[in-house]
Amino acid sequence: MIGRLNHVAIVVPDLAVAASQYRGALGADVSDPQDLPDHGVTTIFVNLPNTKIELLHPFGEDSPIAGFLAKNPSGGMHHVCYEVDDIIAARDRLVTEGARVLGDGEPKTGAHGLPVLFLHPKDFSGTLIELEQAAS
Amino acid sequence: MIGRLNHVAIVVPDLAVAASQYRGALGADVSDPQDLPDHGVTTIFVNLPNTKIELLHPFGEDSPIAGFLAKNPSGGMHHVCYEVDDIIAARDRLVTEGARVLGDGEPKTGAHGLPVLFLHPKDFSGTLIELEQAAS
Repeated sequence: MIGRLNHVAIVVPDLAVAASQYRGALGADVSDPQDLPDHGVTTIFVNLPNTKIELLHPFGEDSPIAGFLAKNPSGGMHHVCYEVDDIIAARDRLVTEGARVLGDGEPKTGAHGLPVLFLHPKDFSGTLIELEQAAS
Repeated sequence: MIGRLNHVAIVVPDLAVAASQYRGALGADVSDPQDLPDHGVTTIFVNLPNTKIELLHPFGEDSPIAGFLAKNPSGGMHHVCYEVDDIIAARDRLVTEGARVLGDGEPKTGAHGLPVLFLHPKDFSGTLIELEQAAS
């Protein structure tokens, strides 16, 4: 069911410092920061030949990643995102298999403007998983 | 400098359970477990169209991931691995840029039989990074 790894999301304490680490020492193609007020994050993309890394920092109050950064003040890997062809079919399969979808179980519009779901880390060996409907 | 994301490594408390989660609920292509005594891990590959996930569990005593699992008993994301064309040139660039290479600074033979280095998480916003020389 799951397709491409769309991205790995990494929460960082300072986006400018992180951008410098990836652009400088690692020589990667790093985007400018983008504020996503609706998602409570500012993002920087690290573009790799086969996927991307998303560096995240809280934006505004009530950011969904504020708690993670408080627990991990040096930053850390936050989630992985897999593409699926049909987010509703994916959701139904997961529920049938006993996995818990976070929130009310309905897809939300994610940071890329596509429907997404998040799955409970306890059902996947401690990893927070995002599923994103693949762009058609 | 960095090229493809070779893999995301996830430490799991039970490989059979994790294999079932990825094969069942996520419908992924999951390999059989492989013991790597020289590296102190047992691995299972989750093969995705553009990269792979490596599920890791300690093998034997003195496993390098035993401490991580003790601190994260439910499991969690452990490191990301990027490919580089020339591991020595990569190492020299990193040292020049002030990043710390773990161990004695010399590449070791990694789990795929290729030269690898690990970089200090404190120099990369809390993420443990492995660099692997790309297969020629």
